[in-house]
Amino acid sequence: MVRSVFMEDLDAFTYRERVADGAPVLIPVGSIEQHGPHMPLSVDVLLSKAMAGAVAEHTGSLVAAPIVYGYKSQQRSGGGNHLTGSTSLDAATVIATAKSLVLELARHGVRKIAFVNGHYENYQFLYEGVDLALGELRLAGTQDVRVMLMSYWDFVDDDAIAELYPDGFPGWDLEHGGVLETSLMLLLHPALVAMDRVADIPPAVLPTYDLLPARPEITPPSGCLSSGAAATADKGQVLLDRASAGMVTAIRSEFGM
Amino acid sequence: MVRSVFMEDLDAFTYRERVADGAPVLIPVGSIEQHGPHMPLSVDVLLSKAMAGAVAEHTGSLVAAPIVYGYKSQQRSGGGNHLTGSTSLDAATVIATAKSLVLELARHGVRKIAFVNGHYENYQFLYEGVDLALGELRLAGTQDVRVMLMSYWDFVDDDAIAELYPDGFPGWDLEHGGVLETSLMLLLHPALVAMDRVADIPPAVLPTYDLLPARPEITPPSGCLSSGAAATADKGQVLLDRASAGMVTAIRSEFGM
Amino acid sequence: MVRSVFMEDLDAFTYRERVADGAPVLIPVGSIEQHGPHMPLSVDVLLSKAMAGAVAEHTGSLVAAPIVYGYKSQQRSGGGNHLTGSTSLDAATVIATAKSLVLELARHGVRKIAFVNGHYENYQFLYEGVDLALGELRLAGTQDVRVMLMSYWDFVDDDAIAELYPDGFPGWDLEHGGVLETSLMLLLHPALVAMDRVADIPPAVLPTYDLLPARPEITPPSGCLSSGAAATADKGQVLLDRASAGMVTAIRSEFGM
Amino acid sequence: MVRSVFMEDLDAFTYRERVADGAPVLIPVGSIEQHGPHMPLSVDVLLSKAMAGAVAEHTGSLVAAPIVYGYKSQQRSGGGNHLTGSTSLDAATVIATAKSLVLELARHGVRKIAFVNGHYENYQFLYEGVDLALGELRLAGTQDVRVMLMSYWDFVDDDAIAELYPDGFPGWDLEHGGVLETSLMLLLHPALVAMDRVADIPPAVLPTYDLLPARPEITPPSGCLSSGAAATADKGQVLLDRASAGMVTAIRSEFGM
Amino acid sequence: MVRSVFMEDLDAFTYRERVADGAPVLIPVGSIEQHGPHMPLSVDVLLSKAMAGAVAEHTGSLVAAPIVYGYKSQQRSGGGNHLTGSTSLDAATVIATAKSLVLELARHGVRKIAFVNGHYENYQFLYEGVDLALGELRLAGTQDVRVMLMSYWDFVDDDAIAELYPDGFPGWDLEHGGVLETSLMLLLHPALVAMDRVADIPPAVLPTYDLLPARPEITPPSGCLSSGAAATADKGQVLLDRASAGMVTAIRSEFGM
Amino acid sequence: MVRSVFMEDLDAFTYRERVADGAPVLIPVGSIEQHGPHMPLSVDVLLSKAMAGAVAEHTGSLVAAPIVYGYKSQQRSGGGNHLTGSTSLDAATVIATAKSLVLELARHGVRKIAFVNGHYENYQFLYEGVDLALGELRLAGTQDVRVMLMSYWDFVDDDAIAELYPDGFPGWDLEHGGVLETSLMLLLHPALVAMDRVADIPPAVLPTYDLLPARPEITPPSGCLSSGAAATADKGQVLLDRASAGMVTAIRSEFGM
Repeated sequence: MVRSVFMEDLDAFTYRERVADGAPVLIPVGSIEQHGPHMPLSVDVLLSKAMAGAVAEHTGSLVAAPIVYGYKSQQRSGGGNHLTGSTSLDAATVIATAKSLVLELARHGVRKIAFVNGHYENYQFLYEGVDLALGELRLAGTQDVRVMLMSYWDFVDDDAIAELYPDGFPGWDLEHGGVLETSLMLLLHPALVAMDRVADIPPAVLPTYDLLPARPEITPPSGCLSSGAAATADKGQVLLDRASAGMVTAIRSEFGM
Repeated sequence: MVRSVFMEDLDAFTYRERVADGAPVLIPVGSIEQHGPHMPLSVDVLLSKAMAGAVAEHTGSLVAAPIVYGYKSQQRSGGGNHLTGSTSLDAATVIATAKSLVLELARHGVRKIAFVNGHYENYQFLYEGVDLALGELRLAGTQDVRVMLMSYWDFVDDDAIAELYPDGFPGWDLEHGGVLETSLMLLLHPALVAMDRVADIPPAVLPTYDLLPARPEITPPSGCLSSGAAATADKGQVLLDRASAGMVTAIRSEFGM
Repeated sequence: MVRSVFMEDLDAFTYRERVADGAPVLIPVGSIEQHGPHMPLSVDVLLSKAMAGAVAEHTGSLVAAPIVYGYKSQQRSGGGNHLTGSTSLDAATVIATAKSLVLELARHGVRKIAFVNGHYENYQFLYEGVDLALGELRLAGTQDVRVMLMSYWDFVDDDAIAELYPDGFPGWDLEHGGVLETSLMLLLHPALVAMDRVADIPPAVLPTYDLLPARPEITPPSGCLSSGAAATADKGQVLLDRASAGMVTAIRSEFGM
Repeated sequence: MVRSVFMEDLDAFTYRERVADGAPVLIPVGSIEQHGPHMPLSVDVLLSKAMAGAVAEHTGSLVAAPIVYGYKSQQRSGGGNHLTGSTSLDAATVIATAKSLVLELARHGVRKIAFVNGHYENYQFLYEGVDLALGELRLAGTQDVRVMLMSYWDFVDDDAIAELYPDGFPGWDLEHGGVLETSLMLLLHPALVAMDRVADIPPAVLPTYDLLPARPEITPPSGCLSSGAAATADKGQVLLDRASAGMVTAIRSEFGM
Repeated sequence: MVRSVFMEDLDAFTYRERVADGAPVLIPVGSIEQHGPHMPLSVDVLLSKAMAGAVAEHTGSLVAAPIVYGYKSQQRSGGGNHLTGSTSLDAATVIATAKSLVLELARHGVRKIAFVNGHYENYQFLYEGVDLALGELRLAGTQDVRVMLMSYWDFVDDDAIAELYPDGFPGWDLEHGGVLETSLMLLLHPALVAMDRVADIPPAVLPTYDLLPARPEITPPSGCLSSGAAATADKGQVLLDRASAGMVTAIRSEFGM
Repeated sequence: MVRSVFMEDLDAFTYRERVADGAPVLIPVGSIEQHGPHMPLSVDVLLSKAMAGAVAEHTGSLVAAPIVYGYKSQQRSGGGNHLTGSTSLDAATVIATAKSLVLELARHGVRKIAFVNGHYENYQFLYEGVDLALGELRLAGTQDVRVMLMSYWDFVDDDAIAELYPDGFPGWDLEHGGVLETSLMLLLHPALVAMDRVADIPPAVLPTYDLLPARPEITPPSGCLSSGAAATADKGQVLLDRASAGMVTAIRSEFGM
């Protein structure tokens, strides 16, 4: 069979061997969400999967099939779920999916699990799913499953930020469709990026609170919260290297590898 | 941007144009499930997505990102969910996912939706999700959304079956990991098939009822319910052509295209 | 007290003796669903209960009170839930009911449980309920509860079918309100059958997929999917004998009796 | 077809005529609960159904198929759910069942619905189910469905109580398995009553609060909270007449008949 | 730190000492519900908290932070939830809250828990929450948590009733906004009572059943079901003393203190 | 009656007048969570309520009774829910509570609602509750309810931060039990603060990801993530003034007042 870190590419017999060897399993979590006129709806799926793949290569981990659909896009971090194309799940469904995957992997014998999140809005719901799963495992007497929750941008260090954003860093919340994601996509899936369609706008100025229902007028027409015009594949390489290196270190440390 | 029938490859602006033109949206539904030693865990995702893609090309439809994880594998149709590698969701989560996707697509303005199912066990739960979504749309005064539910093998006609199974057809329920799926994988993803690992066994003999918890001894050791040894890419082509042609006809007929 | 295989007729003290003796418990599952102009809404309740009663007599089992309301009638197997009279539950409620009954019987000390299903649409939801219950019992350290899931018509063998349908068998899915159910009702509850109201129609021709919302025009006006005109009490006796004999064999085999 | 007030005995076509005529529908709600050594587990199903039948005869109503399984038996009104034989549902399932039945009957066109409850513990959960159903109907613009909730013993007037309990009335909460239920069963289902097995005990003395888990020692060994020894079929007739008359008056008054 | 029986006033370190000493924890349960023109919306919160406080002083217990919002006001015991100001939760939320609090206190090491209910409509839903929590604790092997459920008025004895209601007792169900609650509020929170706004009406005459949707005309315009005009702080003292004394006795008896 | 901005202090008649005048309603959301050895478990309830009260005074708003119990404490923002004393709800319960309160206030006629959150971990679950409520209101044809979500510390501006933290600002996530909360408590509830019990530690150094189950060793023994030693009532006044002023501005702007 193929040699792959991606669990979904492996046959069950090969997968069982890897699990028996104690391989951690990384679960990419994305979303189907508008990412402006220059990138596809699946950016968060593609990037979380690529990040997980890079981390898996260096940690002997497997990458589970991604959670494709995520929690609702919010106006302050993703443009808002009122935008056509963004296709999202309720909190209860995200929670239940995360819970089930932890329980299923634990049933397989996996003891080291990490979610590699690529969509800000998912985080707290993944947390709840993991917490519920671990509670249920405790009822069953299983105490040794450990689960990490990582959003990949949280592993880009300050040095990299200073290097990548010489004119100032808008903050991760405004990076929706901006330099981070566009650079990574240019590196990893250039055919899916149309740089000539980038809306080169200043970073959106958004309130420090949410108002629902969404007010369409506060999201830039492109749906991006900052400009991806300065994105390059080289920056994507830096981002991929730094973020994955940070995650590799964290996983090795926590999982004692 | 790229020309693609796959919604997940499109940017939101292009997607909006296609939806405004009235394009149906097809949702592939798979599972992460063991498929024997010769095929990967993602067979049902890959095949439902390929089937939906073929149908979309001929009907002007879009293909949504797949539902990757599905309902629990059952012993009489998929070997059983006790097998390591099969990674499944509870009914409630499958139902909620199907419901949410119908509601989200309806919010986008889509009025013609079809689920293209590639995992037998999903069907009734997709049905419930669709029914609940349409009930909620009715409350909102939206009456014109129509949803088809199709399992792709139900569109392989009797002539094709006679041609493909000259020694007798074991029935779709025993086709788990058998000629149907192996042939399609040989056609579509040959690098993911290891024909030298096929377990060439007679079709499993299974009871006309279920017993839970699963009895591992009644599932063949390979996890396949019949042999894929007679599979060929040519048979895969026949299956793809016939099944997709049947679905194209059905969609055109129901959606008045 | 009365001598009865029906748990609902027994006082609790007598029931406790039977459970202490290791009696299996069979749970009939029906529906309140239109069955044409010639049969009552409760056909599936009456027949599943009668089948369970016949099986209980030969296996020393008890029959629990029936699950009266079932999952939504579907157009390809029951005419569709849009028809007035059909009174159905959501999937979540069917699942929860099945789960609770397994857990309650297990609490009583019952270790051998079988659902005797009389309404096609219930099956997958009963399966999920059983699976969830067994999962919860495992958490509690109870490993020895086993549950069978049987739809009674799946135990009518090919010889009986050939004998009962000399002009060809339409398939169980089209047997809604047809020869099978009408014959059994003529045998068991003749006062509730009006043979002069049978709609003698050819079997319905239905698609190989579902479309929701239901299209009323594809269900025959009677609500039956094939004709019950050829039904007789004698055929009912054959059906009762064969199906119950098949279930008796299965129960004895699985439950080691 | 048969002439019957019981919806479950009617064919769908006859049922539709009755609904089109504006017939109210009464839903009996029981439980499967121990009722001492002298009465069967189904007392609450049988009595709620009989009460509803009597009321239906005098109000032109139909009686829906009963809700057979009810909420957990409580120690202060039913002996407690720890007792083997009592087979109960969680609150969520009782609520969902009641909600679904209201919605289904409303879909049929029924506008006057009454629950006839025969198991004390069900009441508040039926209330919630009805409230949720009416909330959903309001969303759909349906404002004219009205639902009554009745426990049949609440319609036995003080005069009847004085007549039937010459030595003092223990209170409805202690009437579990006592004179009320035993008398009605002697009238309606004498073959299911074993008067020689009545435990002739003084009324149980129970606290004014609940303690969970149940303390088995405070429930009398018989499972009855007072003695049924003074029960007679004549008293059953008085109870049936008074309770049903009270319910008939209430229904006529509320439903303007 | 402060000396207080109220857990919410204590720092976590002090709380831990008290729990380690085996202190029971009492959970007040109220509602935000109209209580006529003369009392605030929070009467049930204030009184359940005061009752719990009084009981805690005499039993060495702690009082948890109150459950503030409760189940829907019902027309026969609280005027009905259609009244503006009454702000209520669905049954599922009340159940889940009660369940979680039991599980959280059990996690802390608390083994003696009592709910002190101040809103009639909450009771059965608290019961279910407790039952579900204890079920889950059993799965985890925790068998020694015991939970009492008390509505404080059930501990006012007949002597006190005769003394406090010389002109006849209307029944606890009609005491909504009447002498009981008004007297206790005059004693405990006189600044929140406006005796000049009491509606001095005869007790409401209500049916022995519920009808939904609510009929506003059967609730007195004040929203109170009986008059609070005869209320005095002295009566409040009697009520507080008797009810708390009864609860103290019950807790000491059940919890072996 | 009393003059109060707190809805829970008002009688229903006065409340109705205020709602009829178009008053916004602010909902404080807290938690019962350890806040070190020097502050009580109810800090988040007290502060969110005080903040809401201050905002209400300047905007003509009412303050609803608080949501007392909140989502689970997380190790990176609150020390972790493994700590005894922290008493939390599952996500589903927080979501359902927020949803219900929006629906109930909307039923009262309130059209301007704001959550004033005092516990970081609540935010995303409140968001989901609000989103679900607005979705249900849309089904009912109610389009004009608007809801703000505010965490009060997000309104402390950079100038105030520079003034209050001359030695550097640790970040809001580490402010659990630190200068912010301690200063506000010293201002508002000094009797509940024991400055001699403050653990004067450097800010905790926490990872950029979560690991579950919690690792107790990474939370400082005090349960606080930074030191409150530099807290003063004067700083509390600055914080109260700035945060409430920011919220007042936001509310006036969004609600057009």
